[in-house]
Amino acid sequence: MTTAPTVDVPALLADLTLEEKASLCSGADFWNTKAVERAGVPAVMLTDGPHGLRKQATAADHVGLSDSVPATCFPPAVALGSSFDAELVERVGRALGAEARAENVAVVLGPGINIKRSPLCGRNFEYLSEDPLVSGVLGAALVRGIQSAGVGACVKHFAANNQETDRARVSAEVDERTLREIYLAGFERVVTEARPWMVMCSYNRVNGTYASQHPWLLTDVLRTEWGFDGAVVSDWGAVSDRVAALRAGLDLQMPATGGHVTDAEIVAAVRYGELDEAVLDRAVGRILTLLARALPAVREGGVFDADAHHALARAAAADCAVLLKNEPVDGTPLLPLDPTATVAVIGEFARTPRYQGAGSSQINPTRLDDAWSAIRGIVGDRAVFAAGFGVDDPSADDEALRAEAVEAARGADVAVLFLGLPAGDESEGFDREHILLPAAQTVLLAAVAEVNPRVVVVLVNGSTVQVAGWDHHAAAILEGWLSGQAGGGAIADLLLGRANPSGRLAETVPLRLQDNPSYLNFPGELGVVHYGEGVFVGYRGYDAREQEVSYAFGHGLSYTTFGYTDLEVAVGGEQNIGEQDVTVSATVTNTGSRAGEEVVQVYVGPPASAVARPVRELKAFTKVALEPGESRRVTFALTRRDLSYFHPRQGRWVFEGGEFGIAVGASSRDLRLSATVTVTAPTSAPPLAEDASLEEWLAHPVGSRLLEERLAAAGPSQLTDPEMRNVVGNFPLARLVTFPGMPLTPAEVEDLRKAAG
Amino acid sequence: MTTAPTVDVPALLADLTLEEKASLCSGADFWNTKAVERAGVPAVMLTDGPHGLRKQATAADHVGLSDSVPATCFPPAVALGSSFDAELVERVGRALGAEARAENVAVVLGPGINIKRSPLCGRNFEYLSEDPLVSGVLGAALVRGIQSAGVGACVKHFAANNQETDRARVSAEVDERTLREIYLAGFERVVTEARPWMVMCSYNRVNGTYASQHPWLLTDVLRTEWGFDGAVVSDWGAVSDRVAALRAGLDLQMPATGGHVTDAEIVAAVRYGELDEAVLDRAVGRILTLLARALPAVREGGVFDADAHHALARAAAADCAVLLKNEPVDGTPLLPLDPTATVAVIGEFARTPRYQGAGSSQINPTRLDDAWSAIRGIVGDRAVFAAGFGVDDPSADDEALRAEAVEAARGADVAVLFLGLPAGDESEGFDREHILLPAAQTVLLAAVAEVNPRVVVVLVNGSTVQVAGWDHHAAAILEGWLSGQAGGGAIADLLLGRANPSGRLAETVPLRLQDNPSYLNFPGELGVVHYGEGVFVGYRGYDAREQEVSYAFGHGLSYTTFGYTDLEVAVGGEQNIGEQDVTVSATVTNTGSRAGEEVVQVYVGPPASAVARPVRELKAFTKVALEPGESRRVTFALTRRDLSYFHPRQGRWVFEGGEFGIAVGASSRDLRLSATVTVTAPTSAPPLAEDASLEEWLAHPVGSRLLEERLAAAGPSQLTDPEMRNVVGNFPLARLVTFPGMPLTPAEVEDLRKAAG
Repeated sequence: MTTAPTVDVPALLADLTLEEKASLCSGADFWNTKAVERAGVPAVMLTDGPHGLRKQATAADHVGLSDSVPATCFPPAVALGSSFDAELVERVGRALGAEARAENVAVVLGPGINIKRSPLCGRNFEYLSEDPLVSGVLGAALVRGIQSAGVGACVKHFAANNQETDRARVSAEVDERTLREIYLAGFERVVTEARPWMVMCSYNRVNGTYASQHPWLLTDVLRTEWGFDGAVVSDWGAVSDRVAALRAGLDLQMPATGGHVTDAEIVAAVRYGELDEAVLDRAVGRILTLLARALPAVREGGVFDADAHHALARAAAADCAVLLKNEPVDGTPLLPLDPTATVAVIGEFARTPRYQGAGSSQINPTRLDDAWSAIRGIVGDRAVFAAGFGVDDPSADDEALRAEAVEAARGADVAVLFLGLPAGDESEGFDREHILLPAAQTVLLAAVAEVNPRVVVVLVNGSTVQVAGWDHHAAAILEGWLSGQAGGGAIADLLLGRANPSGRLAETVPLRLQDNPSYLNFPGELGVVHYGEGVFVGYRGYDAREQEVSYAFGHGLSYTTFGYTDLEVAVGGEQNIGEQDVTVSATVTNTGSRAGEEVVQVYVGPPASAVARPVRELKAFTKVALEPGESRRVTFALTRRDLSYFHPRQGRWVFEGGEFGIAVGASSRDLRLSATVTVTAPTSAPPLAEDASLEEWLAHPVGSRLLEERLAAAGPSQLTDPEMRNVVGNFPLARLVTFPGMPLTPAEVEDLRKAAG
Repeated sequence: MTTAPTVDVPALLADLTLEEKASLCSGADFWNTKAVERAGVPAVMLTDGPHGLRKQATAADHVGLSDSVPATCFPPAVALGSSFDAELVERVGRALGAEARAENVAVVLGPGINIKRSPLCGRNFEYLSEDPLVSGVLGAALVRGIQSAGVGACVKHFAANNQETDRARVSAEVDERTLREIYLAGFERVVTEARPWMVMCSYNRVNGTYASQHPWLLTDVLRTEWGFDGAVVSDWGAVSDRVAALRAGLDLQMPATGGHVTDAEIVAAVRYGELDEAVLDRAVGRILTLLARALPAVREGGVFDADAHHALARAAAADCAVLLKNEPVDGTPLLPLDPTATVAVIGEFARTPRYQGAGSSQINPTRLDDAWSAIRGIVGDRAVFAAGFGVDDPSADDEALRAEAVEAARGADVAVLFLGLPAGDESEGFDREHILLPAAQTVLLAAVAEVNPRVVVVLVNGSTVQVAGWDHHAAAILEGWLSGQAGGGAIADLLLGRANPSGRLAETVPLRLQDNPSYLNFPGELGVVHYGEGVFVGYRGYDAREQEVSYAFGHGLSYTTFGYTDLEVAVGGEQNIGEQDVTVSATVTNTGSRAGEEVVQVYVGPPASAVARPVRELKAFTKVALEPGESRRVTFALTRRDLSYFHPRQGRWVFEGGEFGIAVGASSRDLRLSATVTVTAPTSAPPLAEDASLEEWLAHPVGSRLLEERLAAAGPSQLTDPEMRNVVGNFPLARLVTFPGMPLTPAEVEDLRKAAG
């Protein structure tokens, strides 16, 4: 072990020249920060890697997307999100951290926790969920895992970067309630719970201002409210105006800017008095702090066990796959496969796996398993393979391959079809235009199903595909996602019952794309995207509109079954603002004959509210492993914040008392136990506003009494007439009384208002 | 005939004192403007009246909603909108004008042409359509009709007032493209085509600013762009800040403001130099101009023939009702009723008509017909009546009345049920919370249908009700709307074949409220309503999402049938920007055995576009009366504007060339003829913006050539790699080239951009 010199931030800040400080605020090249050798400031390396390290060995690739040193390709976020398993995700994070440390990398540029607003987003495979709780909890787990190795994590892309179309310019127009409740909530959780060393701002604008130059996002919310104490880095090329970005709170610009152009802009801005040098010092201080945190591990390095990581990648992939459907054929569910049966494995994806998406997250894997070899390894000669479609273009119709596949299926006890999206459909840089499987594949499926009703479909895709239209051909569907380098073995384990599926949908499978809440507003136009569905993203929208879906958020089957009993809901703590918690307990029992894992989900329905709130929202979850017959009591604590909504004008979370619906279940639409609990809110009536409406006056405990007394004294008038109150009830009282012949003057209303307190 | 003194506006403006001028800017009482007797400025009266005059005889009612002098209650706007008959609507307008003139009224406060954004809006019965073309064309017809009598019309409520909830404060948050294409388009048509004397601003805020103090709305758009030369009046009580409103372009505040408070505010603002007196003079000049226009008719007065107006009201109501469904029972459609059959007339609405909505539009009718009497007058003793439900509460379940109705139905050849909304459900001042009929009524319907399958339902409602869930019980459904004082007779005429239904739905009947495009954003919260569905209002939204509906926009059956043939679409004019018209012609033939009227509708589908445009939009319609066997060639001219979208950043209508779909049909989903036409747009390529993306460079005719030449000269690079172009194609080129090792500099990109022109 070498002894690393410490980075003395205050001393360095005092010592560094203006030019040196400015130079630290942008990269040296694509992946490294700049050193200041004179002052002993070293450079460190940042690399891509939400699901595996992408350290580029040479400078040959200038946009940074070419081959990298081999690293374990863990299941991408789309799969990890479906694990609903924070412990697993943290283990993956630890492995990522170990690999980064072994490569002397200071920061892993992940996790990406943007909300899957639309299934079309080209980068959804890099994101965890349509739900901010799942995104936040699992994102925090990844950060904890990575940072446990002494390596930094960089949560991204902050914020409201939910599409690739026009991503470098588009303004996401989002009201603050929606931002806070949906798009920022996951970041808030990761920052406050896991304390990442870095946050990466996104390319897009948020309500007109580039995220990279957004003081409210990068300083007011991120640092002042959430207490973030790390460094903010730009997404690669996200800076438009360097000085404005620095002022807003963006510390490190990446990558290098040709000829250090922007460093010089900073220097000039300070020289000409346009930028307070203290602002620069603040940024440099944060970058130096990052170095101080990272250098011990970078210098110490480490080793990792590639075989153990591959095994972890396999276990993780098995934990992530979602068994969507498993219906009996001739009285028995098709899955797990009977190990004595003959199996036709169909689909080129089984032999040539698609296991990650394209773009900056692409890993050069240490090994690569395919499902066909793994199945054959277990089943032996009873398994046969037919490609069904070509590897070069999985959407091309190939009659010969189809005929061969149909023959293979005809002769087998069961046909397992690997269907999925062509690699070219899913990538950073552009969005999908539909959510359909290639027609050639659904034609293949129908042809196979015609000769053999015992059909299992394994899906290979980085984001939701429509299943309506073909799912009746399959008795069982296993959503395998993009599952990393060991996914092939994991799928074989699941199909053959060596592992029990326990993944859950972190994104709804709608009947059709048109049903998606963002449909009319995705991906926007002319540089603007309106988040017109507001908080009703994903299941919140399908539920609000009472839309049928193919598979609900949180859904996922197992080879065993689980029972839920003994729900208890207790309102704890004193009746003390801010401290009132709700405790939810239930007993979960493995009622089947196999060991398995259940994801227990707690949904909360709102009380009567001043705002339109989702029918139910996931507020807690846990994954429980149970032997056959085993029971476990699980307990969740919900905080006041969990029950609140964000009030944009008041700029705070508002807790409304009332009757909350608490439900515990196996998915958002498979609620097994439910209860209603009354939680009291602070009882002081808010004061009547100057523009309070007649209705609001009549609903106010004190104001109504004062007003009614006054009106009664004045005798019958339009204001005492019930029908008239209906028609003009929504008028501000102070304005209503300016009408001719009213029994009150505006001044008298104002006196009453003050008296009402 | 008396000789009226003329109003010499310039002379008066010079003569009036500051106080006198300010006094003219608000009402004397509820309905009258102020006079300045010294200077010979008379007062005039304005009265409510979109579908009939509501002149209040005394000052007894201070909020202005009590009894008024008798006047003909024509069908409310909900019905008139369904006529799709501009000629009819103009005749109704002429009658309204005559009644106003007879009462010495200067201005009729109508029509209301707000878009029916949600079926829930409490005031939908006062509005024409969910479509701006129907609203604009019929609104203009009403204005023309009223003003032909020398009486002013006042189009309202300007603008984006599409709900009653919190209407006096709520801010409608609408992007400009949506405002222009949907919410302002009808006003634009009325103002530019029919030149109303007045426009009434609405209560609500638009994007944060009260409509009453919105300079962009009241001056920039209304006057500067559209050329409005009349006076703007506030909705009653809509002014918050009088001086700001005056500055924005609000001329007349109504009603009187107690103690002339706001007049004094104007005087003080001028005195203290806060308001340029020229601004006041401008408003006073407009008010004096209004007087000048109105005084001749006010002074001359007139008479009208109440019987003739009643007959017109009956003919109009017959023209408005929409035959939704008319399926054969035992081989023959139930409607028109066999005049020799026995008829059970069921439903209190048949005897005690609900014929208008509540609030400021409520008319004191000159007469009132009920359907029961009218049917009995034709059918005689073969008709029997059963109330089915009570008049006081049509939603209360009454077993005795139901049993009596079932018995009546059992004994009759056919049962005609009048079902509808309780009066308390539909009113100015509040919105509905659902679109269901009272359960007691659907229970009654089911009970009747059980004993007699020959069931006709006549609907009595001011805005869409859900029919799914009960419509299978009725072989025929006639949507009668609220149909004015003569509606009872009109319904009898239609049921018995003395008139032939020809109304068409001006608002979609969805399967469920939840399907409505505004559902997630209605009525908003905390003082804000986001128009999150954008331009996808009404059928535009149902079509965009490919949602099944119960009855489509434009739908309506007849007792005869119509054939469509010989579509011709011609691109006319020179290839001259701004003048390029598309002419659409088709032949419509009455292919049945009865005279009838068909509403021929022209829908346009957009070309490939830079923005998300509706699948199809109504761009022209006409109503054609045809004898059996008769044919008519109808021709429509579509303008360049009809084919354009509004570009918010450019602030203008943009015409994109390309392939337009032109369809002619009987409803938005019953398109009988269609063609594709290529219309060319001006060909000059727009210049590349400074932040043009790589994709935009590669799509630009000159820029792509220059860039490709330059890149080819520099040799292979990331910018020439096709896969890389996919991933970074949406980056601004000038920013992309700041990445390390790029073959171009930002300065070189800028040179290329200038060279590309």
